[in-house]
Amino acid sequence: MSSVEAFDVVDLIRTKRDRGELSTPQIDWLIDAFTRGYVADEQMSALAMAILLNGMERREIRDLTMAMIASGERMSFASLDKPTSDKHSTGGVGDKITLPLAPLVAVFGVAVPQLSGRGLGHTGGTLDKLESIPGWRAALTNDEMLAQLSDVGAVICAAGSGLAPADKRLYALRDTTGTVEAIPLIASSIMSKKIAEGTGALVLDVKFGSGAFMQDYERAEELARTMVALGTDAGVATTALLTDMNVPLGLAIGNANEVRESVEVLAGGGPADVVELTLALAREMLTLAGQPDADVEGALADGRAMDVWKRMIRAQDGDPDAPLPVAKETHVVTASRDGVLATQEALPFGIAAWRLGAGRARQQDPVIHAAGIDLHAKPGDAVRAGQPLFTLSADDAARFPRALEALEGAYTIEDTAPPRGPIVRARIES
Amino acid sequence: MSSVEAFDVVDLIRTKRDRGELSTPQIDWLIDAFTRGYVADEQMSALAMAILLNGMERREIRDLTMAMIASGERMSFASLDKPTSDKHSTGGVGDKITLPLAPLVAVFGVAVPQLSGRGLGHTGGTLDKLESIPGWRAALTNDEMLAQLSDVGAVICAAGSGLAPADKRLYALRDTTGTVEAIPLIASSIMSKKIAEGTGALVLDVKFGSGAFMQDYERAEELARTMVALGTDAGVATTALLTDMNVPLGLAIGNANEVRESVEVLAGGGPADVVELTLALAREMLTLAGQPDADVEGALADGRAMDVWKRMIRAQDGDPDAPLPVAKETHVVTASRDGVLATQEALPFGIAAWRLGAGRARQQDPVIHAAGIDLHAKPGDAVRAGQPLFTLSADDAARFPRALEALEGAYTIEDTAPPRGPIVRARIES
Repeated sequence: MSSVEAFDVVDLIRTKRDRGELSTPQIDWLIDAFTRGYVADEQMSALAMAILLNGMERREIRDLTMAMIASGERMSFASLDKPTSDKHSTGGVGDKITLPLAPLVAVFGVAVPQLSGRGLGHTGGTLDKLESIPGWRAALTNDEMLAQLSDVGAVICAAGSGLAPADKRLYALRDTTGTVEAIPLIASSIMSKKIAEGTGALVLDVKFGSGAFMQDYERAEELARTMVALGTDAGVATTALLTDMNVPLGLAIGNANEVRESVEVLAGGGPADVVELTLALAREMLTLAGQPDADVEGALADGRAMDVWKRMIRAQDGDPDAPLPVAKETHVVTASRDGVLATQEALPFGIAAWRLGAGRARQQDPVIHAAGIDLHAKPGDAVRAGQPLFTLSADDAARFPRALEALEGAYTIEDTAPPRGPIVRARIES
Repeated sequence: MSSVEAFDVVDLIRTKRDRGELSTPQIDWLIDAFTRGYVADEQMSALAMAILLNGMERREIRDLTMAMIASGERMSFASLDKPTSDKHSTGGVGDKITLPLAPLVAVFGVAVPQLSGRGLGHTGGTLDKLESIPGWRAALTNDEMLAQLSDVGAVICAAGSGLAPADKRLYALRDTTGTVEAIPLIASSIMSKKIAEGTGALVLDVKFGSGAFMQDYERAEELARTMVALGTDAGVATTALLTDMNVPLGLAIGNANEVRESVEVLAGGGPADVVELTLALAREMLTLAGQPDADVEGALADGRAMDVWKRMIRAQDGDPDAPLPVAKETHVVTASRDGVLATQEALPFGIAAWRLGAGRARQQDPVIHAAGIDLHAKPGDAVRAGQPLFTLSADDAARFPRALEALEGAYTIEDTAPPRGPIVRARIES
């Protein structure tokens, strides 16, 4: 990226503040200057807030995405002798789908180069979850990643600092400045990394509902369409599934417990909703990679996906058979009456798990791998008075009161429960 | 300020982003934590942008003001044997009124403790102007300030770092993040310093028009009413004048040239508009201090105000008789036709002077004291083709093209000019 023309960043901030449009050279300059440190964090965060509140035109979002890609290196999987297909989720409560999905798709000879992130607000991060496995390391060199893709076929690792470094800095900044939930920034952040990583195909799991960043279905659909267009324009075969995140996914919310649940799915069991979404995304990824008829259920049932999982964990120095960390303290919440569990809202359960230590408030905070929530019933399940509804886990019992506070009114027991629709609500293609 | 309760700053940012209201304990905690460095600049600037775009309730603004005052020391002029009266301008193009005003009011035994700032965007700073006087220093200790008020009666100096330190940090941050123009932040910034400095009376010069922060009259009036209410609630006798800033004030825009023009006013001359506003503000300040009938014209005409000026400059090590800096390069713009100068827009002239070096783009930048613009005609004046309209001054001729670019269309010559109204448009009291 070379920029001959220089701009005044305050002018750019004012332009977005006053609902104006940034030009392509302005956006190129901005991202280049931010990467080089000429634009300060406080300037970028003010601009991010203005973008969140006032929006961006589609052309500006495309420019932003391409400028973020240009801020760093671009990877290539051209040397692999197999197609690549990747998945990205916009994040939800209990969303551990990447863990069983990557090995499942790799079973069919399609390489899955899954560059993941850490926790963002009340939603967990895939790397945080995997780091609860003793020995497992998130950081790989590009050579290690390529070797693992060639050998094992699936890799889940941290995005290297060379890939869209502007996005990496901006992502960290958004997390601590209340500017996560902006469609232009979410779309360009996700797509810059995915396009730069060089995947041939990409399936986006765009969530809507109380536990998603985009609570409104319409906003989620807008995000999905924005990203599908960005990917398609950049030559990546891209589709999106719009999936329901009103209720936590599966029965585990946290880190170590989500790994446990993922292993259950890989062993052919696990909660129905986790299995349903894993299969739907695997079919989508394999279809884009030219295998619409792959027998994904079979690969879970017969242990082939589990085999890839274990090889994938071992390749990154993790012990797939080692015991996972267990919390020092637990607190069980029981049903107050007989009836049917009618509601179980994802957002408050996500916030409660965050307050228990499963997520972070500041970028530099550690997460407590054993902290989280295990659900013992899902909406629609009959319950009896006194029966455990869920268990909180933490390393310090002092965390329970604030977590329970978040959960007030977050679940209800009624005489009947409303029917639940399918998790996958729509499919978006270009 | 002691805060037993702690909050999550990201929650607070989200609250304002989503149009919610911050509680008194939240605002107290926020400002205390910002002062101590627990809230980062990038978090505060994102919050400032959210406040700019979404506003604050009057109660929140009062809490913010009181929290900023509580972040530092409060001064007291109780030991002085005279009343105190101060003025604050929201800033405009060519606004050097403080310079003749402070000594003029002091003539009548009313002390003027003028804590001033540096340049903010396209408007100049009073300290920047005075620093063009050889030897003059802006920094005074509280004891030096009190001694000068007792002896000379007028002081213009930098606000000490002990006074509303939270405001000082926030003000610097707003300047570089496009968040200057927020009524809640302007009002609390100004009033926290003025209330903390301990003045007994305060007159606000709230500007509207193209060269003012608040270009709309209605927004300027809202700012004035907000500040008058804040001052009155805190026990400071406060009024505001709403004054026209569509046209630059006087004939000089810059630093050294504005000092020259101020000295002309103190010598009984000077441009009519500068004299008119100086007298109006002096009368207002003296009325609030119990002297509604002071002969302010007389004090300019007979040299008493000039005497105080010279003593005031000398008390801060300046030489009031020393030559002021002169620019290396000048560029004269002449009239293209015969007619009447019809328009002369303050904002582009302010931006042009800024680009010539009279103001700063970043907090750490120096200003060029000799840079600026001298006007040779004002709207309503008859002009002949070829007659000089204004002169640009800079230390580097390379600055002229961008300054001239800002001035395109900023002045027009017509057959007739619209009549100009009075500068003081309204008076606001509680």
